[in-house]
Order: sequence, then structure tokens, then C-alpha cells
Amino acid sequence: MAKKIRLGILGGGGDSLIGILHRVASQMYDNYEIVGAVFNPNHEESLAFAREIDIPTNRIYKDFDTLVEEELKLPKEERIQVCSILTPNFLHFPMAKKLLENGFHVICEKPFTTTYEEALVLQEAQAKTNAILAITHTYTGYPMVRQMREMIKAGAIGKVHKVDVRYYQGWINSIIHDKEKRSTVWRLDPKKAGISSCIADIGVHAFNMVEYTTGLRIKSILADFNYLYDDNQMDVDGTILVRMDKHVKGIVRASQVATGEENGLAIAIYGDKGGLRWEQENPNYLKVQSDTEPLQIFKPGHAYNSELSLDGTKLPPGHPEGIFDAMGNIYKGVARAIRGEEYNDGEFPPMLDAVRGMDFIESTVESNKKGNVWVDLK
Amino acid sequence: MAKKIRLGILGGGGDSLIGILHRVASQMYDNYEIVGAVFNPNHEESLAFAREIDIPTNRIYKDFDTLVEEELKLPKEERIQVCSILTPNFLHFPMAKKLLENGFHVICEKPFTTTYEEALVLQEAQAKTNAILAITHTYTGYPMVRQMREMIKAGAIGKVHKVDVRYYQGWINSIIHDKEKRSTVWRLDPKKAGISSCIADIGVHAFNMVEYTTGLRIKSILADFNYLYDDNQMDVDGTILVRMDKHVKGIVRASQVATGEENGLAIAIYGDKGGLRWEQENPNYLKVQSDTEPLQIFKPGHAYNSELSLDGTKLPPGHPEGIFDAMGNIYKGVARAIRGEEYNDGEFPPMLDAVRGMDFIESTVESNKKGNVWVDLK
Amino acid sequence: MAKKIRLGILGGGGDSLIGILHRVASQMYDNYEIVGAVFNPNHEESLAFAREIDIPTNRIYKDFDTLVEEELKLPKEERIQVCSILTPNFLHFPMAKKLLENGFHVICEKPFTTTYEEALVLQEAQAKTNAILAITHTYTGYPMVRQMREMIKAGAIGKVHKVDVRYYQGWINSIIHDKEKRSTVWRLDPKKAGISSCIADIGVHAFNMVEYTTGLRIKSILADFNYLYDDNQMDVDGTILVRMDKHVKGIVRASQVATGEENGLAIAIYGDKGGLRWEQENPNYLKVQSDTEPLQIFKPGHAYNSELSLDGTKLPPGHPEGIFDAMGNIYKGVARAIRGEEYNDGEFPPMLDAVRGMDFIESTVESNKKGNVWVDLK
Amino acid sequence: MAKKIRLGILGGGGDSLIGILHRVASQMYDNYEIVGAVFNPNHEESLAFAREIDIPTNRIYKDFDTLVEEELKLPKEERIQVCSILTPNFLHFPMAKKLLENGFHVICEKPFTTTYEEALVLQEAQAKTNAILAITHTYTGYPMVRQMREMIKAGAIGKVHKVDVRYYQGWINSIIHDKEKRSTVWRLDPKKAGISSCIADIGVHAFNMVEYTTGLRIKSILADFNYLYDDNQMDVDGTILVRMDKHVKGIVRASQVATGEENGLAIAIYGDKGGLRWEQENPNYLKVQSDTEPLQIFKPGHAYNSELSLDGTKLPPGHPEGIFDAMGNIYKGVARAIRGEEYNDGEFPPMLDAVRGMDFIESTVESNKKGNVWVDLK
Repeated sequence: MAKKIRLGILGGGGDSLIGILHRVASQMYDNYEIVGAVFNPNHEESLAFAREIDIPTNRIYKDFDTLVEEELKLPKEERIQVCSILTPNFLHFPMAKKLLENGFHVICEKPFTTTYEEALVLQEAQAKTNAILAITHTYTGYPMVRQMREMIKAGAIGKVHKVDVRYYQGWINSIIHDKEKRSTVWRLDPKKAGISSCIADIGVHAFNMVEYTTGLRIKSILADFNYLYDDNQMDVDGTILVRMDKHVKGIVRASQVATGEENGLAIAIYGDKGGLRWEQENPNYLKVQSDTEPLQIFKPGHAYNSELSLDGTKLPPGHPEGIFDAMGNIYKGVARAIRGEEYNDGEFPPMLDAVRGMDFIESTVESNKKGNVWVDLK
Repeated sequence: MAKKIRLGILGGGGDSLIGILHRVASQMYDNYEIVGAVFNPNHEESLAFAREIDIPTNRIYKDFDTLVEEELKLPKEERIQVCSILTPNFLHFPMAKKLLENGFHVICEKPFTTTYEEALVLQEAQAKTNAILAITHTYTGYPMVRQMREMIKAGAIGKVHKVDVRYYQGWINSIIHDKEKRSTVWRLDPKKAGISSCIADIGVHAFNMVEYTTGLRIKSILADFNYLYDDNQMDVDGTILVRMDKHVKGIVRASQVATGEENGLAIAIYGDKGGLRWEQENPNYLKVQSDTEPLQIFKPGHAYNSELSLDGTKLPPGHPEGIFDAMGNIYKGVARAIRGEEYNDGEFPPMLDAVRGMDFIESTVESNKKGNVWVDLK
Repeated sequence: MAKKIRLGILGGGGDSLIGILHRVASQMYDNYEIVGAVFNPNHEESLAFAREIDIPTNRIYKDFDTLVEEELKLPKEERIQVCSILTPNFLHFPMAKKLLENGFHVICEKPFTTTYEEALVLQEAQAKTNAILAITHTYTGYPMVRQMREMIKAGAIGKVHKVDVRYYQGWINSIIHDKEKRSTVWRLDPKKAGISSCIADIGVHAFNMVEYTTGLRIKSILADFNYLYDDNQMDVDGTILVRMDKHVKGIVRASQVATGEENGLAIAIYGDKGGLRWEQENPNYLKVQSDTEPLQIFKPGHAYNSELSLDGTKLPPGHPEGIFDAMGNIYKGVARAIRGEEYNDGEFPPMLDAVRGMDFIESTVESNKKGNVWVDLK
Repeated sequence: MAKKIRLGILGGGGDSLIGILHRVASQMYDNYEIVGAVFNPNHEESLAFAREIDIPTNRIYKDFDTLVEEELKLPKEERIQVCSILTPNFLHFPMAKKLLENGFHVICEKPFTTTYEEALVLQEAQAKTNAILAITHTYTGYPMVRQMREMIKAGAIGKVHKVDVRYYQGWINSIIHDKEKRSTVWRLDPKKAGISSCIADIGVHAFNMVEYTTGLRIKSILADFNYLYDDNQMDVDGTILVRMDKHVKGIVRASQVATGEENGLAIAIYGDKGGLRWEQENPNYLKVQSDTEPLQIFKPGHAYNSELSLDGTKLPPGHPEGIFDAMGNIYKGVARAIRGEEYNDGEFPPMLDAVRGMDFIESTVESNKKGNVWVDLK
């Protein structure tokens, strides 16, 4: 018997894409029930949305602070256990802080915070309550990404010696090449969007993918950003040389002006015995390659996959699962953690990943500003 | 404000793959709530499963007849509105019949019934109550399958003149080549599994795909089945020549011994102006081809797609959705139909498709038995 | 020391595509020298072409008969050893006959002859002189096609139980849908083009591919042709059910109206232990598949390939070779045969393949004409 | 009437892979005849090889100097017109120098020379005689590479703003991870192999590909090499940030330890209107992409391609041509240049490309040595 976990939602109302992604993901394994929410800063709209998706309105609060206050009055067995933070970025920090301090578990969208400093504060807050925090590097929920992690851990490609990852999109082209648009859109306004556009939004996913799959830590980086126009102050493209352990080098490439690319996250990991290649847009194919043996294509759901991978597949081979399923897997892992069940530490990206991501973003900005020099991560 | 549709589930308990597929699909657009069920013929197991997924047990009935009886006692606004039938095949007919006769809507797994005769009975039952019936040819829920339908309707490839579809799997190899296994497994026992294995299970999907995408009806067929061994009485492979309108010919190929194929449904449609190709295992790529222009690859979520296709995509281009999402789209269409909202007739496969599928299965069996002769569909 | 083989060319002058293909192929391994030719029925043009490609004109004969007559006057060590027949189809028979009867070796383009009867005559003629005859089923020269043959022979996929091959093109669309064009073009005039268009031109390649790779013989066939228009008398599309050994069934599909397909020859072979898939347009990738193991992609030039395959690759892995190289491999095999060196019987398609091809074409025409009935090959 | 061009070959005897590549390429369009050679430093082996491939031995010289001396004695209309230099790298410079100074045309394998200084000397030597020099960046001979160049020139993707190219191989893994091997193999001995392994061997191809396709010049670079082991002094992997015109940035990545990669040259070029992607191992597919329109796949031989592209295709669409054909196209261009015919400057890479390649190699070495700083090309 598994009582559904009581989930609160912050943000994600209306036509929010991130909203539907989290709702579907939470329900995927019959683990969660949405019991409370602030879907929208406007309380009326928040209530209307609750009615639209037909959930009870009694715990649709007028704002975040009220939610915390009122929920804390409820007996523990009725109270929201975990909140998903889907709000604009600058709200992640105050919300996560208050939630963690009050013993709520947190599932947080990325970018985690607006500064590395904030991330450290949250890390400390979490340490005190031992609440679960998951940062939604959604792509780690794909079965074949999990398979990479487990294969590398098991030595399938030997000692890793080179990593090459990219995350290429082209969507900002429609803005950046228009002088009017690029000077007015909030996305490219450092005051509103923070210190980085491309790296903070997608480069950090690529960074996380390297560390998630290889189990190695990136130690120092050299970044070169591209702004395209002199009057643009935000990175829309960046290439980052990375150094991990002795002799292990890598490249992290990210772009929002890679014309015609949609959501092109792709990773290649090379070891002294083999190589692995995977692409997010075709997530159910993992290339396992060798210099002397035939190329192998691993696919989800087969018995030859690792337990962690198989745990993320619901149907037999040949039934493609996608990004909703990947996020569903992360929610499943969090559910296990909340319930105190055993779980593999690859089931969801924890606080450390969230903190390191902020460290990475700030370090790349620093490296680029200083003229493409090496900067150590903290 | 959209009240959730009250859904009943028949079958699909425990680790059932079809169970999780339907549960996730029903919740995908916040449209349904499971209010009653007979998950399992064993009532205790049924109740246990309800507790496991944490839904109220008060309407977990001891059997199907009780479910109908008790639900009918409830006021209409509390009563189950639609039942999903996920039980073994031979139960589809009696269950659907009783449900339709009592004014419940029905979502039915395939094969629809065990005979064409039964299908006709259900068609008649439905006609009396105007209940909605959807047969889960899940693959029609993929955005790019819907796109094919709309493009053909709009004349994008001109007059269709040739269709080639296949559905290849290899899973029965592990049974068929083992004399012991093949003589004992229920799947290959005509008394238990009905008149056909391969065609009834997957060939019918391929048949439906042709009619769904082209809008054309298959009029006559010539089938050649393969049994591989003399002591095997069930088709494990079949090739079917089809004739549609004047001069339009096609091929439907299905196999359970196509070694190494997983769930290989693929369709190619050729018209006098263009061609379309799509594969289920890579569902987010639609090839649009011409003899003189560059090959085009259509992908979901782009504004160039039809409304019907876009309605089936939740996230922007580059975020792969899969089979759970396809089924979710079918449930969404059914929800609209139940609520009396407007919908495109491509949103879910209706009774006619269910009936024609049974006609197709029986006709192929007849053609093969008579020595590969042409047989007209009714 | 390897003296170049003295090669004669019949046809293939001017901009002839088949001409350049054979010239390049013959020179690929430094094995042949063109010493004589009738490039064109018009002697002046023939001479002009010889000058254009800068080969001596003294043995550019005014016609085929003169070539044979004059060459026979030369001492054996100067005489043409082998002739490549690249002329219009109806000339293949008289040319090959006279060449074989006079002890010349022959490399013949396909279709071999215009009737099965003629093919038998040539077979008999060859038997008397033991001259080498190769029919240019060029695709058998690809390294990965050779690899399929050797893997199947070695039992890599167990007992073959199903074969599915297609050869799809779309080029005739520009003719067939135009009433004027289709009634005037020689290609669709049975008096000029023979009994079959699609099957004789490309279906026969697909047929040969099945027998070449599996080592099995097709015993009977059931064919359904498509003419598209009532006023068209030539097949532009055909589907052929085939039966090989007991329980081994297959499908041969060919089309010239598969809109947007270029030269789409593709084969899938399924055995009880594994499956193989290959496509001509991407010839350097061979899928080796299993129900339980990861998909493997074999590529040319790797040590894991068979000797026959490796013999057809000139450069290391990753340097794509193509159709000129495939034809070059066939010429290499013929050179070995002419020189009396050892060779693998998979190095070029011999007389038997040529004869069986004609048998196949005539049988399919008969089956279709009789209303899609089973016809045995002779 | 086109007299064959008299070709001399230096190196390339025996089983030399580069030897067969050049021989086949030279014969591909009936343009060249090998009339003289020094296939091997050992004269006996050189003669033996000439006999093996059955070419006259009277102009198989005992060494390079004799070849030049003897050929110069011949009347101009008999003399070798162009020499292909296929010898070990350090011989390229003295041979090319003497040939150019004596009015011979030159086709030179890469790396062009061992230093940038040498390259400048050759550039000067050429300027005096106006002899043709082609450096065999073979990949520029592929029809779809030529198509990229012409499309960009015609503005098809707008203003280029980002370039990403990689050339990944894995073959050195079998050497580099073996302490014994890596300290003894000449390839990794700077005294024998020069200042660079990976960049000089393959990185320079990637560099050339960027400049060839975009028509832009790389102005400065920042390179980071990887040696993997402290006792290894030669780069086996390198990543190079590049800057071209204002705001145009790019990445050149090269590796010999990208395990399982064969000959993975791939380029992506992004402009403000569109993007292009191409991979050498699948050379007949060019992705033409846009943020709003369906992805297009261009293939060779279609009328929609540019003249320069079509000139490099011998057969209709669907007949894959490969690397031998690409090299054949370069030889064809050189033939036109030698004959004084008109030609497109994209038909073969000229002296300037050869010189710039050496500049690039030396600059990357300098940048890496200085600690990954920006270095300007000269």
C-alpha cells in the first residue's frame, strides 16, 4: 500500500508548458496527488486554473507565503510533502529557502538560483533539515542516459579520457538579428534575465550531463562566449573547454543561434576501451562503439540494460517513450526518496548538482569576461 | 471549468503494461478521474491494487456485472461515464455489449472482438444509444500520423496510387522454434487465441494505419500466411496484397518472426505528386518526398503542421514525445466527444474502424485458407 | 606480374552512364586495358568517342560483326579476351551468343536477354567453350552484401525463414501520369521494351539479391502487377510472393511509381537466430540484429568482416566507397576467373544467375496474367 | 579530342592505399595516363610494381632527381605534365620545389610541408612558373561539400555566424595507451613526425573544410591539445576556438582518441537564415535546416543542386558515389586547369589552401604551447 505523496505546485498554471510536464510526470507512476498550489500570482486565475483541471480549490492559496503558513497548520499527515517550483527564476531561491527551512521537500526547475551564493545558502538550508531536493535536469531521466552512467561506472568503456557535449538550439535567431527586438526582450536584458542567457539556460544541462554520465567532476574551464552584436550584452552562444581529472579534457558547446537546431543536446564520451554517443532528440538509441568491434545500438527495455535504465522504461522494446517519461522517472525517484525507500543515486539530480551548475555558470561568465582564461570551479 | 470525466477500468491491474499505459494516458490532459474498476478477476487482488495506486476502494467491484449494476444505481452525475476495457480478448465483446446497451461510453483495446459477427452486434448496440466507442489503434495518436492524414486530405501528395505498410516483430521466435513451447503456449492455440495470431494482433494495426492515413477503404485482399512448422496452426507471419480504389494497390506485411525487429510498424504512401514515409519506432520524423525536390523531414510542434497534428503535441519542437503521449491524445479526443465538444474525426478511431478491423482479419484467414485467392471485404 | 586483360567494349559511348561506370570499374584494380570497341552504331561517332577518351582508334570497329571477325584474325595473345556488352537490351543475345561461341569471355549488362528461351541458348553456348560470363548485378559487389552472403553461409543468423526485399524508384511518375507521354515512350511500348518494365528492369535485381545473399533458390512465385492506367500495358509496379524451401517464404517488391524513391533497393533477411538488413543507398551499413542482443552495425574494412567482404574494400573504415567500387569488385572477380586464379564464387554473378533472372521475369508475367496464381520457376 | 594528360607518380607503390586512390581517381574521367613514376625508393621494387600493374617500365626512374632530369630531356609534348606526390611528408617540400621550378604541375598529398616557412617557399616558386598546384583536401571533391560552398556563396543561409567542425578518429588508441608502443612509434616521435600529430594529420582537413565551404578566412585561434600521457609529446587530440570575421566564431575539433570513430569529419555551418550539416561518412546527404521550415535533405545528382555539385556526380540520384569519386573530381578539375579550360575555383584546393593549412598547424602549436592563448594567423 502506497499512499500518494501530497504535492504542491508553485507556478505552472494556464498554458504553461512546464506545468503540464510536471503534472503528467507526477502522475505517471501513480505516486503523487496535487493537493495544494499557487498556480499563478493572480489568485483568481489560480483558482480558475484549479477548476479547469478539476482539482479542489480549498488549498489553492493566494500566495506562496500563505501556502506555507496554512500548510504548516495542517497535521503532518495531511500537509503538502513536496513542492514543485515552476515559477520565474528569481523566485526559486526565496521559495526553496523557505520550503527547505520548514521541512518541505523540493523539486526545483532550473536554473536553480540566480547566483552561486544563493545556491550555497540553499545547500546549507537543506543540510539542516535533510529534506530532499531535486533539480530537474530532466534529460538524466532518459533510460539510455542512465544506461551510460551505469556502463561507465561498470567500466564498459574503460578509463574515460575525452568528453564532448553540445546543446544547440536556434530559437533566438528570430530575436537576436532584429535590433529592435534584441534591445527590448527581457531574455536579453541582464537586469531581468541575470548574468547569462545561453549557458544558464542550456549550457548548464550539458555540464550536468557530463558529470552525471561520467561520474567525474569538471575542475576548471575556459569559456568563449558569442554575443553576435556589439549592442547585445547576453551570451547567445558559448564554447567551453573543460578539464577534469589529469589528462581528461572535454568540450561543452551551447548555442541559441545554431539555426535549425531544435533541442540538440548530444553527448559523446570516449574511454580507452570504448565510446558512447547519445542524442536527446532521438533518446532511445545509445551508440556503443569500439575501434575494432561492430558498432552497437542499445535500446531501452532490453534485458541487457542496467537496472537503473530498466527502471525507467514502462513498456517493452520498440514502444518509444519520451521526455514526459524521462521527467516521470525523476518524480519516481524523488517519491522513493521521500518515502525512505532504497534508490539509486542516479534516479534524480540532487542538491550537489544544483549547486555545481551555478558554480559552472558563474565560472564561465568570469572566464569569458577575463578574456578566455582558465577558471577553477569552487 | 471542466469536470473530470468519471472513468472505469476493466482489467489492467498489477504489473499490466496496458494498465499503466491507459492510466497515464487518461491523466495526461487533466481530463479523467478513475472512480471505479475491476482491475482483476480476483476481488482481493483488485482491491489490493487499488490501494497500491491509492484510489478509493468503495467502487472497486467484485466483478464486471456488479460494476454495471451498482453504477446504474448511482445518480447520473456520479456514475462512471466511460469504461476502458483492458481484459483478455474474449471478454471485450460481452463487456462492450453490456456497457453500450446501458449507455456507457467505451474505450476498447484491440482486437475488438473474436469475430466479425460480434463486431456487427456491437455496432448495432452502439447505434441505439449513440455512446462513444473508441478502439485503441494507439499509433493514430502520434502527431506525425495525424499529419499524414491531414496532408493527404489536403492533396499534398496528389492522388494516392500505392501503399506499403509493414508491422514486423520478432518476439515469437523464442517460442515458435521450440517444439515443446509452440505446442503448449496459449498464444498459438486456436482454441484459446482465436483464428489468427499475427494478423489479429498486429496486422490489423497496419490495416488501420492505411485506412486512417489515406482515407481510402481496402476493398479486397489476397493473403499468404506463414506457419513455419507443420505442427503449428497459427499464423506467425503474413503478407497481404490489397486493392483499394481503381488501380490503387498496396501491401500489408506483418510478422512475429522478423528476428530483431521490435515494434516495427512502418508505412509508405505514394501519390502522383509526392510520397510519405513514417516509422513507429522513430515517430517524430515524417519523410515528405518528391521525385524532383529535396527530401523534407517534418517534425512535431512546428507551425507548418496541421491543426490536428499540433493538437497532439504538448511541448515545442525537439522535445520527443512517445507512445504514452499518443495514447493520451486518443483519450483527449474521446474526452471531447463525451463532453459534446467539437473534434476532428481523426482524434480517435471509432466503431467503424473496429468493425472493419475484424472484417479484415477474417477475410485474410479466408483468403489464406482457400489458397491465396482474392476475397472482398464486406 | 599481371598483364592487363584486353577488354572490348560494345556500346557505352558518348555520355552513356553505363559506359563510364564500366570504364572506371575496369581500371579500378589496374586489371584491364580497353583495346577494342564499338562504342556506337555510328562508326564516326564511335571513332570520335575513342579520340575523346584518347584510346587508339585502330581497333574501333565499324560494327560488332567486324569486331569479332577482325579480332579473331589477331594472334591469341593480342586478341580481345573479354567483351562488356552495354548495348540496348535486344542486342545482348546475338552479341553474347557470337562472343561465347568464339571463345570470348563476356560481361553482360542486364536484363540478360529478352526471353528465358534465349538465356537457355546462351547457357548452352557457354557450356561448350567454358568462357566466363558475368551478369552485372552490380549490387552484389558491395562489401556489405558480400558480408551478408558469407555470414548466412557461416550460420550467423541460423536457418533463414523469411526474406523481404524491395526495389523502389519513382522516376516513371513523370511519364506514367501523362497520357500523351505514356502512350508514346518506348519504355512502355511492349513491342520495343519487351514483356515487362518494372520487373525486368529492377525487380530482377531484387530477385538476384535474395538468391545471392541467402544461397537459397526461389521455387515458385505469385505476382500482382500494377499498371495504374487502363491504357498502359506495361507493369510499373509489382509485388511478388515467393516460396523457397519448405516453409521459407518471402516478398519481392518493385516499383517505378514509389514517388520520391531514388534507387531504393533494400533487403531484410530473417533467420531463427538473427536478422540482417541492408540498403543500397547507404551501402556501408549492415544491420545485424537479434531479439535479445543489442543491434550491431557492421561497416566495411573492419577485420571482423569476411574475406570476401574485405576483398571488396580498398581503404580503411570510414572512407565510403560506392557503386563504382562495387562494379570494380565484380570486374576484379572476373579478372581472376579469366586469369585462372582462385576466386570465391560470390565475386561475380555467373551464367546461372543470368538464366534464373529471365526465368523469374517470365514467371511473374505469367502469374500476373493468369490472375495472381502460383507459378513454379523452371 | 582530349589527349590524356601525362601523369607522373611519386610514391604510392605496392599496397599503398594512397597509391590506389590516386590511380583510380586519375582514370575516372579518362583524363590521365601514367607515363612515368618512382613508386618506391628501391628501384627494383618500383619496376616490379610497374610490371604488376602492367605499365611500361621505360620511364620508371631510379629516383626523383633522375625522373626530373630525364623528363626534361624529352620533348615537351611527351614529357610528364603533372606529378602526384604521395611520398612520406618530409619529401613533399624538396620534390614540389624542384617540380614547380621546372615547370611541372603538382598534385600534392597533405600535410603540404613540414613548416609554414617551406610552404611560403613553394608559394613563391609557383608564382614564378604559374604551374598548377593542388593540395588533396579530398573531401572538397564530394558533391555535397561543393553544394555547401555554392549555397553559402548564393546566400542560401544568409550571413554565416557560427561554424562547428570536427574530425574524430580513434585509431591511435591502440598505440597511445601502450607505454612501449607510444614511445617507439615514429608517428609520435616529434623528430620523425614533425611538430604535430592530430592537427597536422586531420585537424588541417577540418580547417580547410571551414574555409572552403564558407569562403571566410580564419583570423585567429586558441588551441588546447591533449597528450593523454606525460611521456607523450605529440598531440593526439585538440580543440581549437576560431575567430573569423567580426562576431563570427567557430570551433575546430580533432581527435585520434575518439574511440570508435572511424573517419568522422563533420561540419555544421549556421547563418542568420539557415544552417547546413554534412558528414563525411555519409557524404551523400546534406541537411539544409531552418528554424521554421521542415528540414531538407539534399542529395547528389538532382537538378536542384548547383553546377559545381552536379559536375561531381556521374550517375543519377540514388547511386552512391564515394571517396574515390571525390578524389576523381579533384583530378578532373586539375585536368581542366592544366588544359587551360575554364573551371570553377572550387574544383580543387590550390596553393593558397596549402599554405594556409601550414599556417594553421603552426599557429595551433604555438597557442597550445603558450598556454591556450589567442594567436593570429599570418
